[in-house]
Amino acid sequence: MTVAEDNNCCVSICQCFFDYSTPKILVIRSKKVGAINRITQALVIAYIIGYVCVLNKGYQDTDSVLSSVTTKVKGIALTNTSDLGLRIWDVADYIIPPQVPSRYNEDEEESSFFVLTNLIVTQNQTQTHCAEIPSVASICSSDKDCKAGFRGPRSNGVQTGTCVNFNHTVKTCELFSWCPLERDNEPPNPPMLSDAENFTVLVKNNIRFPKFSFNKRNILPHINSSYLEHCVFNRSTDPECPIFRLKDIVEEAEEDFQTMAIHGGVMGVQIRWDCDLDMPYSWCVPRYNFRRLDNKDPENTVAPGYNFRFAKYYKDSDNKDTRTLIKGYGIRFDIMVFGQAGKFNIVPTLLNIGAGLALLGLVTVVCDWIVLTCMTKRHHYREQKYTYVDDFGLLPEE
Amino acid sequence: MTVAEDNNCCVSICQCFFDYSTPKILVIRSKKVGAINRITQALVIAYIIGYVCVLNKGYQDTDSVLSSVTTKVKGIALTNTSDLGLRIWDVADYIIPPQVPSRYNEDEEESSFFVLTNLIVTQNQTQTHCAEIPSVASICSSDKDCKAGFRGPRSNGVQTGTCVNFNHTVKTCELFSWCPLERDNEPPNPPMLSDAENFTVLVKNNIRFPKFSFNKRNILPHINSSYLEHCVFNRSTDPECPIFRLKDIVEEAEEDFQTMAIHGGVMGVQIRWDCDLDMPYSWCVPRYNFRRLDNKDPENTVAPGYNFRFAKYYKDSDNKDTRTLIKGYGIRFDIMVFGQAGKFNIVPTLLNIGAGLALLGLVTVVCDWIVLTCMTKRHHYREQKYTYVDDFGLLPEE
Amino acid sequence: MTVAEDNNCCVSICQCFFDYSTPKILVIRSKKVGAINRITQALVIAYIIGYVCVLNKGYQDTDSVLSSVTTKVKGIALTNTSDLGLRIWDVADYIIPPQVPSRYNEDEEESSFFVLTNLIVTQNQTQTHCAEIPSVASICSSDKDCKAGFRGPRSNGVQTGTCVNFNHTVKTCELFSWCPLERDNEPPNPPMLSDAENFTVLVKNNIRFPKFSFNKRNILPHINSSYLEHCVFNRSTDPECPIFRLKDIVEEAEEDFQTMAIHGGVMGVQIRWDCDLDMPYSWCVPRYNFRRLDNKDPENTVAPGYNFRFAKYYKDSDNKDTRTLIKGYGIRFDIMVFGQAGKFNIVPTLLNIGAGLALLGLVTVVCDWIVLTCMTKRHHYREQKYTYVDDFGLLPEE
Repeated sequence: MTVAEDNNCCVSICQCFFDYSTPKILVIRSKKVGAINRITQALVIAYIIGYVCVLNKGYQDTDSVLSSVTTKVKGIALTNTSDLGLRIWDVADYIIPPQVPSRYNEDEEESSFFVLTNLIVTQNQTQTHCAEIPSVASICSSDKDCKAGFRGPRSNGVQTGTCVNFNHTVKTCELFSWCPLERDNEPPNPPMLSDAENFTVLVKNNIRFPKFSFNKRNILPHINSSYLEHCVFNRSTDPECPIFRLKDIVEEAEEDFQTMAIHGGVMGVQIRWDCDLDMPYSWCVPRYNFRRLDNKDPENTVAPGYNFRFAKYYKDSDNKDTRTLIKGYGIRFDIMVFGQAGKFNIVPTLLNIGAGLALLGLVTVVCDWIVLTCMTKRHHYREQKYTYVDDFGLLPEE
Repeated sequence: MTVAEDNNCCVSICQCFFDYSTPKILVIRSKKVGAINRITQALVIAYIIGYVCVLNKGYQDTDSVLSSVTTKVKGIALTNTSDLGLRIWDVADYIIPPQVPSRYNEDEEESSFFVLTNLIVTQNQTQTHCAEIPSVASICSSDKDCKAGFRGPRSNGVQTGTCVNFNHTVKTCELFSWCPLERDNEPPNPPMLSDAENFTVLVKNNIRFPKFSFNKRNILPHINSSYLEHCVFNRSTDPECPIFRLKDIVEEAEEDFQTMAIHGGVMGVQIRWDCDLDMPYSWCVPRYNFRRLDNKDPENTVAPGYNFRFAKYYKDSDNKDTRTLIKGYGIRFDIMVFGQAGKFNIVPTLLNIGAGLALLGLVTVVCDWIVLTCMTKRHHYREQKYTYVDDFGLLPEE
Repeated sequence: MTVAEDNNCCVSICQCFFDYSTPKILVIRSKKVGAINRITQALVIAYIIGYVCVLNKGYQDTDSVLSSVTTKVKGIALTNTSDLGLRIWDVADYIIPPQVPSRYNEDEEESSFFVLTNLIVTQNQTQTHCAEIPSVASICSSDKDCKAGFRGPRSNGVQTGTCVNFNHTVKTCELFSWCPLERDNEPPNPPMLSDAENFTVLVKNNIRFPKFSFNKRNILPHINSSYLEHCVFNRSTDPECPIFRLKDIVEEAEEDFQTMAIHGGVMGVQIRWDCDLDMPYSWCVPRYNFRRLDNKDPENTVAPGYNFRFAKYYKDSDNKDTRTLIKGYGIRFDIMVFGQAGKFNIVPTLLNIGAGLALLGLVTVVCDWIVLTCMTKRHHYREQKYTYVDDFGLLPEE
């Protein structure tokens, strides 16, 4: 019995306070067991050093990128159609909407701009009456087939209740609508603004790792204005030029620009900033990647590509509303900025060492199991490791 | 004393290398203690299996959804007002802005479109002079009450310094402004584009779990084009149709469409992809949810709903700028894509088993405490467990 | 040898089931060792309580903010230029695009609006022929210097192949383009819409912590409508007013509004909701912060500021397309909502206590090392702690 357990309480507590408890250890001096033990430990340590420290840089504190993007497209396209005649298209014409509403997210920044590449134009529409486009639902033989006020889910206007000639052979229900109706056929092939492949876009990207007060931009310090005047990004010759030719972007994603331009699509421009801030400042550079984001799967028959309708409104000489309806096909470029920076910090280093030590503790569990069940001398070791006590006292150990 | 501790260093280290240390264990053979121990262990194991493995699927590696959304609204609305006369509204008229700038985020994808449901139109505004709308600040009796060049924080233009008749009874300060001024009263009730409730929207959503190279879209493989031609989402009859009637969206969120249409609002369309990729491909399907995002609280008196002003600019016959000012009320639909996929992976499985074993270690702590303080035979056990040593040597153990 | 190890299996398993294993402990009663032990323990406990519980609020479950923002700008600007004459600018004129496409993210909400502050207007452009702006590439002496159909990367249109007078002294290649060309000089200084500094913006922000079903908005419950009618945010006198004067926003970020207005820029309005939901409801209030997001670095010579081109399209009396090209400079305000809420929850509390106990286990490792290598009585302690066994039996312990 230890001293003073039940009598002088104060002394007992005082004594307990300076008690230091440490587990009793059995040391087994066996080359076999020792080897197993050391190999297991070596594996764990190799894992900690290799995976946690070197690969995952567990000694670093990390921070996500904060970024801000602005883009500026340049280029001129020339079209020559029977409808529109010879026409020049500049930035204000083919970038829709004109402003690039950039996003500023904690994890990721996104900015997107849309370049019109193909279009179906319906000019001089006014609110009046005209014959519906022929379809199963709209073809009629007499006024009885048409219902005044009816509007189908896919119709272009409200039926007036009259059956009129659509052309010499077909009669369809008359509509009250924006007339003339759009002939919603396939978009022109080749695409109208096929010149768009030579447009260039300047991407300005400021990034910040707030935890480390680190700022940088994709126009690297050693790039001068005169280089920026004429350079075009090229993965092998000009990998740091922030000006991209649209065709190059699309082709890096293994797509054909002219094919994509017909029905439109969505391209992703990924800017990745993975920076090790323990390394020199100049090593932190952006990497660019391009891939197609929308599904170009040919079996995707439900409205493939990327298009939308918009209108330009005018007043004609009688102050009556007219509009030019445009079904615009084009490529939306989504600029996505990802990134992470790491820098040495004592807290994660200690945390990872701690976790590693805890893992080393599991080695004992594995080795114990091997020693006590597989080794030939297991009974011998077991006797030494275990002491048995039952409800009534010590069991005889042998 | 162990051999060679202070002499042959090399032999000693070599020997140490093959030392295997394992704690000495006291085994207590008591039904009471054993039962407590096993019950605690059972609880921990049940927690690990039940919560970590089954509920949280700790044996799976997880990945967040990458998604891309495009939307296409269809429908025609008819209005008949004294100002505008009979007028038809199609997609190009009521979707503002025409393009849906979809977002492509790592955690969540968002795309939004705005449907105009109600509007106050002020036609033929030109830059000229007119009388301010009567208010405490603008009513005047003579020119002395008006200050040339003054513009109040809530005024519609710049005062010219003259007091003019607003109508037969009231005189207000004259303004230089876009005249005639908008009569900013309450929006029309019922809403002008009440037909908007029957508009439909096709939501195309491609998702990707990059870690597992898993792609899917919300138009499921077994859905064919002819079904898509006529289907409308219905939670019980057509839960997989990606075409939604606007009224259904609003009503699923327990709102009334016509009421909401008057002042506008913001609706959230949530698409959730929670996929267990250990299960068949076809089990990974999107779930749709709808809720109102803005505050419709009646006490929220400060500009409730969702509206904004925009203008269409014209040149009149004298080449003078005119505009049609529109205060548009409407519903903004925010499409949010959430989701996570899990798939069996050895790393998280081992990690969770490891964490479980560590937790099992805590069982000993709890049982020790019970055994050594609560059991009647605690002194007996304590003697066996502890060996005491003080600064000068072994204490007598009994 | 323990009983029944190799014979009656069933009994053995049954007995094993009630075996309770607990490590044998050596208690060292030494003031020195005890003190080191307790000090180390005290440090760990202080760390757990101080850092984990008090600073990091480890006893709380946390949730990120879900938020929705709408903004409303008010104000009138007056300009007087030779081109445009006296002109008034209201919200529909200077907010581009008119709608504020608010974002609704899990971690962060962002909404942005753009206020036009300066502009270069080129009126009455039509598709015709005119002389290119003189530059090294465009100056010519005869038609031979110009190539029909040529369009340079920086040119404004397509060359017709003719060399024409740009003015009395210079001849340049003729273009087919939107003519007259924009004189892309520096933007006006002072900025045209210098009145923009007095515009105000009402920011409505609803937040939600979904895990705690907690909703709040930045228009706090005690703010009444009449206060909102006239208040303007001021960090010292009106810190809760959600109406901001643009000049104040810019000046809080230590920028000069008039300077920034010339070339434009990007301002961040940060709303931070850090709420301890164990505290009263009224303590959860937003904090506003303002900073400039774009790089205003003077060495950033590549298109500083924020501008974009857009056009207003008209039909002239001959039904020919004309447009007014506007190069708009302005300030984009990005409203970012961040935030986290914490509330007491038993799960993270237990988790942190568990992690703390695990950390206490490491204390033994450190103390063991001190005791067994540094203390004068280390041999004495070591003898007691370790029992040695080799392949053939017990080593003599002394």
